[in-house]
Amino acid sequence: MTDVDGAMTRAISASLGARGISSPNPPVGAVILDADGAVAGIGHTSAPGGAHAEVNALSQAGARAAGGTAVVTLEPCNHTGRTGPCTEALIAAGVRAVAYAVTDPNPLATGGHRRLEDAGVLVQAGVRATEVSSGPLREWLFRQEHGRPMVTAKFAASVDGRIAAPDGTSQWITGDAARARVHSERAQLDAIIVGTGTVLADDPTLTARHPDGSLHRHQPLRVVVGLSEISPQARIFNDDARTLAVRERDPNRVLEALGDLTNVQIEGGSRLLGAFFAAGLVDRVQAYIAPLVIGGGAVAVVDDTVQTLTQGHRFSTHSAETLGDDILLTLTATR
Amino acid sequence: MTDVDGAMTRAISASLGARGISSPNPPVGAVILDADGAVAGIGHTSAPGGAHAEVNALSQAGARAAGGTAVVTLEPCNHTGRTGPCTEALIAAGVRAVAYAVTDPNPLATGGHRRLEDAGVLVQAGVRATEVSSGPLREWLFRQEHGRPMVTAKFAASVDGRIAAPDGTSQWITGDAARARVHSERAQLDAIIVGTGTVLADDPTLTARHPDGSLHRHQPLRVVVGLSEISPQARIFNDDARTLAVRERDPNRVLEALGDLTNVQIEGGSRLLGAFFAAGLVDRVQAYIAPLVIGGGAVAVVDDTVQTLTQGHRFSTHSAETLGDDILLTLTATR
Repeated sequence: MTDVDGAMTRAISASLGARGISSPNPPVGAVILDADGAVAGIGHTSAPGGAHAEVNALSQAGARAAGGTAVVTLEPCNHTGRTGPCTEALIAAGVRAVAYAVTDPNPLATGGHRRLEDAGVLVQAGVRATEVSSGPLREWLFRQEHGRPMVTAKFAASVDGRIAAPDGTSQWITGDAARARVHSERAQLDAIIVGTGTVLADDPTLTARHPDGSLHRHQPLRVVVGLSEISPQARIFNDDARTLAVRERDPNRVLEALGDLTNVQIEGGSRLLGAFFAAGLVDRVQAYIAPLVIGGGAVAVVDDTVQTLTQGHRFSTHSAETLGDDILLTLTATR
Repeated sequence: MTDVDGAMTRAISASLGARGISSPNPPVGAVILDADGAVAGIGHTSAPGGAHAEVNALSQAGARAAGGTAVVTLEPCNHTGRTGPCTEALIAAGVRAVAYAVTDPNPLATGGHRRLEDAGVLVQAGVRATEVSSGPLREWLFRQEHGRPMVTAKFAASVDGRIAAPDGTSQWITGDAARARVHSERAQLDAIIVGTGTVLADDPTLTARHPDGSLHRHQPLRVVVGLSEISPQARIFNDDARTLAVRERDPNRVLEALGDLTNVQIEGGSRLLGAFFAAGLVDRVQAYIAPLVIGGGAVAVVDDTVQTLTQGHRFSTHSAETLGDDILLTLTATR
């Protein structure tokens, strides 16, 4: 029996391995079931220029794909970019049926559904579509719709909103579990953005590290934004990841300078965060809140454009997660 | 069959009706089961000078108490204060057995257990003791142990820690559900404490109100702390509740001025909260956090005694509750 739903669960899991790596291509997952319904191949999108998820899964499945079913998180593409169209690879492999979650909104890549049906392949669209579109493909779909990356504002603060004590100390406001989460989130990003002031004050490495200090396989692009001079000796310029300096303060122009990224995170300082909030360019807030009261020192966000309460930036609460003794509050834009 | 556990659940529920009302006496609940195990009477502690929980439950049970079981959240008292000892009332009513949760730590009132056994009553101690001692009797037990009221610091803030916008507007940062919770929490307090600056800035009523604006049956004492002059026309002096002005800024002396209260809450402003944190006099924090970024305006807590991070005031996270679109973070002292 062919368990499309179970295979989609595996495809979704596989797609997570492509997050941050596939950009600007979508992080897709694919599973090939053989004619008996057994899993014959699992794949996800490779780095740009490499194979798409379907092709990776097909190459694992080999001859077992013939008469089988392909289960994919996104409609197979029908165009020749740096790689050939996935539709042709699926047809050539002799799959009998294709089930996918999300319809490709990209006008260049679309048409996969029809091409497969024209070749006599049974096609089922929309399997777990909401789960995938609000999950692994969310940022990529956001980019297709809005023409800019999805932007997360991240900070770690005491319950009274301080990100450092008066003398500047901030290590550590949150505990091990929260910091491990920050790093695993970073490993799925295309870019981390900070202001020059933060680099001058904290000299952060801005890498995604495991708790033992070793680097995650994927490192997001590090972006330093602003007009102050940064020493080439700053840790952000070390060899652990790529770094881009953007001599610019306007949030829209900062995002333009980043090209076709899909998933970026602003990690401070307060004024850079404030500028993105003021520009309406924050789509998600991740606030790590520690059970600590400091009573002085820097605050997380400074936005001088807000004078009265109704001008404040309202979001929706998506979740409040417990991480050790800290809370991760995730807010999403109400648009 | 006599279901002591089920009766204790009812006794705990009944005791909540005494919170705020019984002070300085403990908010106790009592259930009388008749000889067949059926509920014959339920009562809670009356206001000071009125009957204790056991006596209220016994008077409901009448003759059905004979041969029955009394289930009480606190060891029945054995001393004559403004009312007679509950032990004698239980013995006179002819109860066969008494089950209670928490042993009375008050040296004046203790001895109930032994007095009951001496009279031939079966006594079971410690039923759901942890639940009761960390729940309805928590503040009263705290007072017995520490000789001062348990102090909660409460504020409502944006996720970036602001309690008002730059122009002073703060109505409303949080939504209906959070504000309803604030009022139901107030209705269980002995006192709400604010600084004179808060009264001058916001002219709050500081009453406990239902969503329709009507007053809760119990109103905590309103306490204004500080040296600034407050107009007798301020709303805090209206007839909806009693009000005490304490011309004092030292947190220890403020608590001394409040006499034998068990459960008080500081609601601002920032400097008064900071002074209580600095004095180590905050036992619980209730932070209502809205999915809102303001980027300017007043912060929740100002404590100039903290210079570096290790001097910050650490708590433990007790819970994160969702209230509409807001989060209520409850922190407890780690002592």
